[in-house]
Amino acid sequence: MRKTIALTLLAAMAVAPLQAQAPVREADEVIRYRQSLYATIGWNFGPIAAMLKGERAWNAAELKRRSIAVAFAAVQLDEAFAPGSDAVEKTDALPEIWEEPQAFADALREFQGASNQLRIASAGAAEEPIRAAFERTRKACKGCHERFRAD
Amino acid sequence: MRKTIALTLLAAMAVAPLQAQAPVREADEVIRYRQSLYATIGWNFGPIAAMLKGERAWNAAELKRRSIAVAFAAVQLDEAFAPGSDAVEKTDALPEIWEEPQAFADALREFQGASNQLRIASAGAAEEPIRAAFERTRKACKGCHERFRAD
Repeated sequence: MRKTIALTLLAAMAVAPLQAQAPVREADEVIRYRQSLYATIGWNFGPIAAMLKGERAWNAAELKRRSIAVAFAAVQLDEAFAPGSDAVEKTDALPEIWEEPQAFADALREFQGASNQLRIASAGAAEEPIRAAFERTRKACKGCHERFRAD
Repeated sequence: MRKTIALTLLAAMAVAPLQAQAPVREADEVIRYRQSLYATIGWNFGPIAAMLKGERAWNAAELKRRSIAVAFAAVQLDEAFAPGSDAVEKTDALPEIWEEPQAFADALREFQGASNQLRIASAGAAEEPIRAAFERTRKACKGCHERFRAD
């Protein structure tokens, strides 16, 4: 039931990858939005990672809440790499994002899938699926950053 | 059914108002997160407003998607006004937020309630409930900004 609930809501949020949505946005606004989503992801993923690493006490309710927020922001990223939003200096997004759109779309899909898996696992009580999904999510972050983000 | 779905998910996200969550965050991080949530709200509320004002073609799917995003960010704001996050210069948040916590909590609750009403209305086909909820949401934004945000 919970899976159905969240999947339905996430499905409602889904938009076409890398596709500019009406209305057209200024590059600055796209970049600000993109960075906002990553700030939201970091805000929520940090405490998740600390819990998984044993640096904080386990808090199932918080884990669930924060994993929903990460998965939700991940889906919203579909709108956040509109063409033209590479055209200013204040972004760490590398040109490869737009030069290799399929590879970037794949990397983004992997992050979305992994974070969604983490969200679903975090709704349950079993720790091992949570750890597996966390590891997949962490790798998705790292892989995408190494290839598509400036240091 | 749809109401139940979304309310369940939003309920899972709810945290105590104005209460600092573990772990303790640096003021800078809180402010960045707060501004990120408002950027997300603006990104999504702008096109909604344009639709409601007739400046853009009506798009029910987009309205639904963006109203979910606004309501979701509104709930996340509960974490974004932690004590101490008024202590630096780069915020438009007025001291009244922390000096009049009940009044601010009420204003935030009104925004959360209004945006949730908009989300629910946008899941349906009737235009009038959408317009009523939009108007309530717009007023909640304006009222809070006038009282608690610097020009």
